[in-house]
Amino acid sequence: MPYEFKVIRRVEFAETDMAGIMHFSNYFRFMETAEHGFFRSLGFSIVTNEVEPPVGWPRVHAGCDFKAPLRFEDEVEIHLLVSEKKSKSISYRFQFRKLNASPPVEVARGALTVVCVSHRPDGRMAACAIPPQIAHKINVAPAELLK
Amino acid sequence: MPYEFKVIRRVEFAETDMAGIMHFSNYFRFMETAEHGFFRSLGFSIVTNEVEPPVGWPRVHAGCDFKAPLRFEDEVEIHLLVSEKKSKSISYRFQFRKLNASPPVEVARGALTVVCVSHRPDGRMAACAIPPQIAHKINVAPAELLK
Amino acid sequence: MPYEFKVIRRVEFAETDMAGIMHFSNYFRFMETAEHGFFRSLGFSIVTNEVEPPVGWPRVHAGCDFKAPLRFEDEVEIHLLVSEKKSKSISYRFQFRKLNASPPVEVARGALTVVCVSHRPDGRMAACAIPPQIAHKINVAPAELLK
Amino acid sequence: MPYEFKVIRRVEFAETDMAGIMHFSNYFRFMETAEHGFFRSLGFSIVTNEVEPPVGWPRVHAGCDFKAPLRFEDEVEIHLLVSEKKSKSISYRFQFRKLNASPPVEVARGALTVVCVSHRPDGRMAACAIPPQIAHKINVAPAELLK
Repeated sequence: MPYEFKVIRRVEFAETDMAGIMHFSNYFRFMETAEHGFFRSLGFSIVTNEVEPPVGWPRVHAGCDFKAPLRFEDEVEIHLLVSEKKSKSISYRFQFRKLNASPPVEVARGALTVVCVSHRPDGRMAACAIPPQIAHKINVAPAELLK
Repeated sequence: MPYEFKVIRRVEFAETDMAGIMHFSNYFRFMETAEHGFFRSLGFSIVTNEVEPPVGWPRVHAGCDFKAPLRFEDEVEIHLLVSEKKSKSISYRFQFRKLNASPPVEVARGALTVVCVSHRPDGRMAACAIPPQIAHKINVAPAELLK
Repeated sequence: MPYEFKVIRRVEFAETDMAGIMHFSNYFRFMETAEHGFFRSLGFSIVTNEVEPPVGWPRVHAGCDFKAPLRFEDEVEIHLLVSEKKSKSISYRFQFRKLNASPPVEVARGALTVVCVSHRPDGRMAACAIPPQIAHKINVAPAELLK
Repeated sequence: MPYEFKVIRRVEFAETDMAGIMHFSNYFRFMETAEHGFFRSLGFSIVTNEVEPPVGWPRVHAGCDFKAPLRFEDEVEIHLLVSEKKSKSISYRFQFRKLNASPPVEVARGALTVVCVSHRPDGRMAACAIPPQIAHKINVAPAELLK
């Protein structure tokens, strides 16, 4: 379905900190991993050469609520859902579930809003419309999934 | 003043990504750098041995709004402000300003809510009251600074 | 075979730098990913509770020779080989191959020497003999594989 | 002196791992921090626009020997020394000293060999002579410092 994507990661040693848990900055990297996997599942790379001019996706907002820690070798599922689609931006929600618990338990919820940009001749980025071949493939998730 | 702290960082090469800008996950690391410097400025380490039992500060919320990119060797000031103090948690706001611009320009705003925990005998973390010697040193910033 | 292990990683966006290639520090993280996968393949976790007292594996040497860059979304196989086993330390070699090239091409070679330590009552680490149940499962790779 | 450079870093929380010490991959980042500071001390940025065509400095070798761990909030001096200068490459040595010990103690030694490259029209990198305005400013350290 073009409104969601799931990826599983095992927490690595280098992602932990001296408190013995995964450092919170890595949840944001995991969101990005899911976002880029979502694009590949649509047939694109986030670093696209398929559209002209090439576009990039800088973040305008990122947030995360943490409910329980993740530890070394925990397996975590990152579930991406498209929560909003505008002409120049996309918003995602993310549910983090620890799979090696019975039953699996939600450990965090994240959000990301990205804006579509192209590079101007002077090298600066300017917001632009999402290329139609990308926009047409992306739907907003049903409301009941976004609660 | 015990409600704010400033630290300056120069963006390192390893903190950039192939888009040529600082990867967004590093803003969260910079917030933490400011938080820990704030604690040192109060006479504590965030990994404290000064209180008994030792406490830790896991995050329950982290968020950031990005307004302009940071690039390699940019100098960025991270300005921490205490926005809320409860019995078991503290909330911070962060203003990121790029200093090597004239005039310096705000590039991002962040927020962090941390909860005070102690470790139970079974190794799990449980929220606890902020030790008084720490709590007494921390004030909430004046409302006009938090706009 | 208890002298080798292979793991595949896709290079993530956050692992690239502004030169458009994977930052060299990440090769060392990938070596560790293979090392920890190797231990899991033997039935252990590198953060072991199966032996008493618990042991750790700090690095005493790490090195890497880089032959060709890795880029975003490249698939890289990290092939660990045990190159030496002493009473208190293990040395590994690593071959990095980029799989999304025809034919796959070696892009780097790494080496890691780790020492087995236990924690003394004062919290400091001291080298100790590798616990026999671990040592018995680890062989040195045949010489022809280590050329 | 154009054959050495020193920089001081305080170990950050996000740089530690669950073993309670700085993750070994960060020593390589610290070497790079010293390398780039060295270039700034010469009046250049490692991401140079001062020479035409622009050049980059990918690594061909990186290594580190670890003698003692670094922990959170340790202050470490990274001392860069130029150990070799060829027409297309530079080799550096690094001495890591923990300053918050009395007396300060060497905790690691590193090495880095970088090659000067320019980008060809097809985007690939090719080794090239170090631009003379850079090469002229860089000396090899006296042999007694490199022991």
